[in-house]
Amino acid sequence: LLSMALSLSRFGQKLCTHSGILELMDDLGNALSSGSGKIIMLGGGNPAAIPSMQAIWRQRTLEMLQKSPGQFDSMLGNYDPPQGRPEFIAAVVKLFQERFGWKIGPENVAITNGSQTSFFCLFNMLAGEFADGTNKKILLPVVPEYIGYADQGVSKNLFVAQEPAIERRDAHSFKYRVNFDSLEVGPEVAAIAVSRPANPTGNVLTNSEIAHLSALAKERGIPLIIDNAYGHPFPGIIFSEIVPPLWEDHLILTFSLSKIGLPGVRTGIVIANSEIIRCLYAANAIVSLANGNIGQALVAPLLASGELVTICQTCINPFYAEKAHHALACVKKSFDPAWPYFLHKCEGSPFLWLWLEGLACGTYELYQRLKARNVLVVPGKYFFYGLSEPWDHANQCLRINYSQPESTVSAGIKIIAEELAKVWT
Amino acid sequence: LLSMALSLSRFGQKLCTHSGILELMDDLGNALSSGSGKIIMLGGGNPAAIPSMQAIWRQRTLEMLQKSPGQFDSMLGNYDPPQGRPEFIAAVVKLFQERFGWKIGPENVAITNGSQTSFFCLFNMLAGEFADGTNKKILLPVVPEYIGYADQGVSKNLFVAQEPAIERRDAHSFKYRVNFDSLEVGPEVAAIAVSRPANPTGNVLTNSEIAHLSALAKERGIPLIIDNAYGHPFPGIIFSEIVPPLWEDHLILTFSLSKIGLPGVRTGIVIANSEIIRCLYAANAIVSLANGNIGQALVAPLLASGELVTICQTCINPFYAEKAHHALACVKKSFDPAWPYFLHKCEGSPFLWLWLEGLACGTYELYQRLKARNVLVVPGKYFFYGLSEPWDHANQCLRINYSQPESTVSAGIKIIAEELAKVWT
Repeated sequence: LLSMALSLSRFGQKLCTHSGILELMDDLGNALSSGSGKIIMLGGGNPAAIPSMQAIWRQRTLEMLQKSPGQFDSMLGNYDPPQGRPEFIAAVVKLFQERFGWKIGPENVAITNGSQTSFFCLFNMLAGEFADGTNKKILLPVVPEYIGYADQGVSKNLFVAQEPAIERRDAHSFKYRVNFDSLEVGPEVAAIAVSRPANPTGNVLTNSEIAHLSALAKERGIPLIIDNAYGHPFPGIIFSEIVPPLWEDHLILTFSLSKIGLPGVRTGIVIANSEIIRCLYAANAIVSLANGNIGQALVAPLLASGELVTICQTCINPFYAEKAHHALACVKKSFDPAWPYFLHKCEGSPFLWLWLEGLACGTYELYQRLKARNVLVVPGKYFFYGLSEPWDHANQCLRINYSQPESTVSAGIKIIAEELAKVWT
Repeated sequence: LLSMALSLSRFGQKLCTHSGILELMDDLGNALSSGSGKIIMLGGGNPAAIPSMQAIWRQRTLEMLQKSPGQFDSMLGNYDPPQGRPEFIAAVVKLFQERFGWKIGPENVAITNGSQTSFFCLFNMLAGEFADGTNKKILLPVVPEYIGYADQGVSKNLFVAQEPAIERRDAHSFKYRVNFDSLEVGPEVAAIAVSRPANPTGNVLTNSEIAHLSALAKERGIPLIIDNAYGHPFPGIIFSEIVPPLWEDHLILTFSLSKIGLPGVRTGIVIANSEIIRCLYAANAIVSLANGNIGQALVAPLLASGELVTICQTCINPFYAEKAHHALACVKKSFDPAWPYFLHKCEGSPFLWLWLEGLACGTYELYQRLKARNVLVVPGKYFFYGLSEPWDHANQCLRINYSQPESTVSAGIKIIAEELAKVWT
């Protein structure tokens, strides 16, 4: 069929081949486009459809159309600067200044077309190949870590990671802890990165863990990157009490509008020192030219007034908390208590993280068996990267998104239990 | 102020420093946010505000809100697959099949967060450093070429370019021609790329020039990339008669929703053979996760029905044609006929390309003098890259965006004439 043999650069060979995030997003997209009812979608990271949130975004759009048609026209019809929409940046600054007392200004904020693009630029500008021939790394102090980072390096082996300590909490519950005893921040480390709450586990690193990581980064003069996609102050899908980190010059904090119900607008927010922000938006101009304006225009007034934080606390957080509670009850009900299964302590995020200790067939095969039964989940192996040697544990884990309607989640978990019964009974 | 010395990778050093596109987008954004009236904005590539087009997008949004709230919710609240929104891809396929008889299917279409991101992925996956240590290039058969490509290589020297032949048409008009006599498509060339109409010149490569380039690419088994951001079938800002190219397996055709008045939605469209499309959306998953949905949702029905093409022919094209006519008249009126100035034949795009032959101070200095008088244009030097040696002509050229209101354009051109009078009288 092809008249030409496609030959790919190193960039192409790295980015254009199969990746975990591609499989996950393809599963997600195909499930959604297959129509409702057929696929039980417990994979992907699609946020829950929360009716009261949907009403807010419809209302905001209508309000702009009816009350500020000029603003609506300009939102669609004008390019913003690559750093982001000035009034949105001002709203971000206002929120963090007023709520948390952070001493930041507009020079500390950059917007991108979603956090995925924020991380693509940040990781590759900070680490990878250097002019002097050295290779620097992003240190992940805990894996499993977000599947979407795994293939973002334009050069090989961008990540170095370490296994966490596993704290067994009771017969069917555990929690990962940063293993500080063995954590080495070598000279090859350009930055430390964590998601909080963690995707895929729902683990929320404790304040003392964050303080320890921050001190290590500061001591080495490198950034600590904290991905707050599910965290404070929005969407606030955290069920444990945490104090938001203080602002410091060596922190890079990322936020997203996706989990307040707006993944379709692609808006990522980065707060960092002004030098990093300048570098980031310079790269953003080259990679993206400018950002999508819609999310920024819709959300700016709710950020500036602080109303968004209240909405997250009173609407989004309780919605997910109830779903989490229900999903945990489904697992307890469907799974045989004699099985060696363990759920990570559910501290935040829309995910349950299931460890099936000693599972002989491995969770990639389980994922395929479940897919054949129209249940989509994400197998664990994609979340363990940057380790110096393979870890059996990776193939015994599974990510379950519990944000779909309760009937969907319970039906899915029941089928997972049925498949497990085949191998474990 | 900084506690850490920021050290950047090769990627960072390449992408995070000053670039032409960053200067241009910063000028544009600052002009827009400074409020109307102060800055005369003849730089940037912001599309014209066409009231009838703005009304269409407002109407489409209202229609979705009122008639298909579920569709509206899903547009904001669900991730699409990284390849793009299935119904939008279907609409693209339908349009090109029905209007032009192209034998393409959904496997030949990928969506990105704007053409800038399309080119970032395409250029870097096709050219740059290869695993075998060789370096491959993107051949630009004509420079000046789009400023936004210039810095997109994650490795150095991504482009190889050649000067065009200059055809003098009359006392104040010229046209660039591909210099086929000297055009070499060496083994280091991974793809040939052109914009049509060209940004910045408004040059429309003739059908025979395109056929010649296509034959050269096909013979070498490499792609010919044609950037239709201003071209057929949408937005259709072409004033000369051209036949749209036939679809062939070695062509990569890019399109954008920006110039139909939607730069704020960031939607780029790529049509290519299925192997290239698969590579492109695999890279897109890693760089962007998913695309913005709004532009695709707004435009899909107008594409599927073909109505968009009619709107472009009856509304957008005449609007720009009239503006171009007016801008040319302004230049003729304001400029001294004794000056050695030449305008590129205005065949399309929202740009006038001005060659000030022999201008001693150079157009970068002229740009700065104009900026001091609140008139923004784009100096020529940024559009000439990939040449083996500097070309004086580059510093004698200037890009003028004529899509602002007529009073703005005539005021700006008058000030340009005043500054030229200082150096030429």
